[in-house]
Amino acid sequence: MKKVESKKIEKLKSINWEEFYKTPLNNKLKYFEKNGRLFDMLFSQQLTPEIISNLFATANKIRKIAKAKEGLDWLQTLLSHKRAMLYFVQPSTRTFVSFQSACYILGLKVSEIRSTSTSSEIKGESAEDTIRTFSSYADIIIMRHFEEGMAEKAAWMLNKIKRPISIINGGSGKDQHPTQALLDLYTLDISFAERGGINNKTIVMVGDLLRGRTVRSLSYLLKNYKGVKLIYVSPEYLRIGNEIKVFLKKHKIPFKESADLEKSLKEADAVYMTRIQDEYDINGESKDIDYTKFHLNQKHLKLLKKDAIIMHPLPRRQELDVEIDNDPRAKYWRQERNGMWIRAALIAYLFGIEDKILNI
Amino acid sequence: MKKVESKKIEKLKSINWEEFYKTPLNNKLKYFEKNGRLFDMLFSQQLTPEIISNLFATANKIRKIAKAKEGLDWLQTLLSHKRAMLYFVQPSTRTFVSFQSACYILGLKVSEIRSTSTSSEIKGESAEDTIRTFSSYADIIIMRHFEEGMAEKAAWMLNKIKRPISIINGGSGKDQHPTQALLDLYTLDISFAERGGINNKTIVMVGDLLRGRTVRSLSYLLKNYKGVKLIYVSPEYLRIGNEIKVFLKKHKIPFKESADLEKSLKEADAVYMTRIQDEYDINGESKDIDYTKFHLNQKHLKLLKKDAIIMHPLPRRQELDVEIDNDPRAKYWRQERNGMWIRAALIAYLFGIEDKILNI
Amino acid sequence: MKKVESKKIEKLKSINWEEFYKTPLNNKLKYFEKNGRLFDMLFSQQLTPEIISNLFATANKIRKIAKAKEGLDWLQTLLSHKRAMLYFVQPSTRTFVSFQSACYILGLKVSEIRSTSTSSEIKGESAEDTIRTFSSYADIIIMRHFEEGMAEKAAWMLNKIKRPISIINGGSGKDQHPTQALLDLYTLDISFAERGGINNKTIVMVGDLLRGRTVRSLSYLLKNYKGVKLIYVSPEYLRIGNEIKVFLKKHKIPFKESADLEKSLKEADAVYMTRIQDEYDINGESKDIDYTKFHLNQKHLKLLKKDAIIMHPLPRRQELDVEIDNDPRAKYWRQERNGMWIRAALIAYLFGIEDKILNI
Repeated sequence: MKKVESKKIEKLKSINWEEFYKTPLNNKLKYFEKNGRLFDMLFSQQLTPEIISNLFATANKIRKIAKAKEGLDWLQTLLSHKRAMLYFVQPSTRTFVSFQSACYILGLKVSEIRSTSTSSEIKGESAEDTIRTFSSYADIIIMRHFEEGMAEKAAWMLNKIKRPISIINGGSGKDQHPTQALLDLYTLDISFAERGGINNKTIVMVGDLLRGRTVRSLSYLLKNYKGVKLIYVSPEYLRIGNEIKVFLKKHKIPFKESADLEKSLKEADAVYMTRIQDEYDINGESKDIDYTKFHLNQKHLKLLKKDAIIMHPLPRRQELDVEIDNDPRAKYWRQERNGMWIRAALIAYLFGIEDKILNI
Repeated sequence: MKKVESKKIEKLKSINWEEFYKTPLNNKLKYFEKNGRLFDMLFSQQLTPEIISNLFATANKIRKIAKAKEGLDWLQTLLSHKRAMLYFVQPSTRTFVSFQSACYILGLKVSEIRSTSTSSEIKGESAEDTIRTFSSYADIIIMRHFEEGMAEKAAWMLNKIKRPISIINGGSGKDQHPTQALLDLYTLDISFAERGGINNKTIVMVGDLLRGRTVRSLSYLLKNYKGVKLIYVSPEYLRIGNEIKVFLKKHKIPFKESADLEKSLKEADAVYMTRIQDEYDINGESKDIDYTKFHLNQKHLKLLKKDAIIMHPLPRRQELDVEIDNDPRAKYWRQERNGMWIRAALIAYLFGIEDKILNI
Repeated sequence: MKKVESKKIEKLKSINWEEFYKTPLNNKLKYFEKNGRLFDMLFSQQLTPEIISNLFATANKIRKIAKAKEGLDWLQTLLSHKRAMLYFVQPSTRTFVSFQSACYILGLKVSEIRSTSTSSEIKGESAEDTIRTFSSYADIIIMRHFEEGMAEKAAWMLNKIKRPISIINGGSGKDQHPTQALLDLYTLDISFAERGGINNKTIVMVGDLLRGRTVRSLSYLLKNYKGVKLIYVSPEYLRIGNEIKVFLKKHKIPFKESADLEKSLKEADAVYMTRIQDEYDINGESKDIDYTKFHLNQKHLKLLKKDAIIMHPLPRRQELDVEIDNDPRAKYWRQERNGMWIRAALIAYLFGIEDKILNI
């Protein structure tokens, strides 16, 4: 069995990028592992129940340790000898700062490139060469790039060189954004900790389900729980993609689609709001959609269960009224901060030091 | 008394931003305190004589400790567990780098956002949400924003949430720039240390007094000293604003206005030069002003007292000849470096650790 | 003798910038020293054989120490009390990140300015004032500026003030780029370590030899070795400059020029490839040059000696085929990483702490 795996990986190393890229995800996941552990974090499909529960436990522990100065000072010694490159050439505030803070918590030194105009790409360097250059100086690359598949390409390339380093996909273009999925799941997990966890909960996802990658990634990850029900609430034009429905049916996860926000809210244990992703419009088509029916505001709060939670990946626009911020069920600011903890856990995991944290 | 205060603050918490913003400054200063100490540093009016002398003592001590490697290494342990967000979306070199260096001196880890184009504001996020996001990851926000009142708004908002963090106003638009006022005052204090301090000194302020916020803030702070005389030297069109004159009269601080630089220089213990602030022109009106009469150059040096000092908040243009840099009375480069020390003192104060420094 | 030197330096301090700039390099090198050691690193002419061998030894030691966590943690204590300003207002990835990483290795805190648009230069501040401002906060400035001679000007100015700090030239415009020359030489030194070092090797330099500053700087430094032969391979229009030929003749270094890449490759111990520097075109003249004859690709590999090495300062375009990356003779990625080590050695040297590293 092990021999077969290693033969497969050798084959993957020999094919060119176009072939590799076309290879079905399940057939290449092993390529992004080393010694039976994740080496690169690119796709939410890499997140097995074991890894997820390891990361949640680590994040919980980091959060607890970090409450005291001595704790944080200790955490900062763990990876004080490592350097991270944050290569974010697509606009981002929260993902960028959240990763940077996660690095600081573990003591990593951070370099950042926020624009291709200050980098050598302006002199005609390929993105691959730029990334390989980072690998000459850094011990991990966390990246968000405008070119689809670029994080995978970076990992594909670096896994073939003598001094490979880990890549974390910080969410590129319409690509996956696996650490967002992780923090969403972590927020559900924490929020339902005293109510039996995520199992048997009804999750209502609202908004631009066609193009919102967070909704897709989270849907995939929910297969790891039992009795979860999903309600997808969106305008007709922005309904959840077919590949998700196929996936849910395959895994026997019950779901329904609706255009009626108010009715759906009544059933929700968690409401996951999303912004209209008009940056992916081809012809400004978002303007013709009446999105106001998918706006959550104070009048909806009375429809919600008392212990329901409200989430949003942020940034928000009008779809989530700021007045809701004061409602105790609003968890999106906490969700944001959870991102920092879970990313710190992920970085610890990728450097193989999570046991030091878990065992202290 | 204490009950009355806390009732007032409860009321301030309940009103909306527009109402809060219109509230007279004196009625809301307490809102930016916690446990009888400054929590946010927004206005020079917050700087009482007690706080000022505390900050000066702390800055002096930090400056002294930092001379030795062991000292700096020790200072860096004090806030090694804290993270600062430097949110500077208006151009700035010295204020930015000075704050960053102040953070480094105390061991804080620093994240920086220098442009709204790399942040989520480009996706339609409000500045408030962006700032609240920073508060999810950082322990203090130091900010300069193009929108007037934004630092106050940030502090107003964050003081209402469960995990409030301090805001330092790094000087926004025509707003106040309280740490510049502090460093100016600190430079006067150090320079006159062996001549009885700031009391009884004559300070000549020169240039664009209408729009230069440093001149305004410094004028306000001088009420804390005795026997100070002020001479405001400017073109007719750029005379000091009326609200300052009202303030000076109220506090019985003698002042005069003049258009004659040479005559005024003879009386000066300190000359505070300022640049024409043409970025606040509405119709390029600065071009019609003959500013050359308010330029200081070598020929003026002989008019100055031997122990007078020359200050400038920098950056400068032609109003302060580079030839003057070599004159021992030129203190503006030292003034700049003082900014780093006093900002470190302020940060130490806001985190409540200044006693550790003062008592070592 | 010493008196004569110090008199010369006094004279250099008294002349203005234009005169200083015109002074022949050899007559002013001492100006950039303190206590018989380099204080600023501006020109490859400053690199004597003694300094070079000191830097190589230090870099080797740092590289070795950095392999273990304890080693890196120790290195980071050496300059933990120092702050570096990275002032890079010309696009750069590798030089910037490489210097930043070098700073991190030694524990320096780093501030960065990557664009004049976020700095006070936008308010009309002179570059000199901006640099002097950095010197108020930082302990060393590493800079790349679009204005020729700016690094020298910065060092010229700062050496006259009370609190001078070191300047490292990170390669400005068509200026020298001495740390690139150093890392190239260091790569040659390491690669030939078991074959008698750089002495008696034949080095083939290929491409835009007219405008490539790395080729020029490296040529100068090779005078420190015996029996080296140089072959310059380029299009007619991009031949090596006359000043280099004069220099080589003066130092009796044999060289030839050629337009025949294939023939030259056979003789090479090292092939140094370079990119066409079309950013220095005046009228797009590069478009008329057939550069393809100076492209290295797989078909050339069989012409090369088995133990030859292939170098490139990067970034590359078509002149160096990515297929070559897998050839064991390709050393350019290692060359890049060597830049980080040699820069760390240089910084250690400029702060006078290299002995702590060498003696451990």
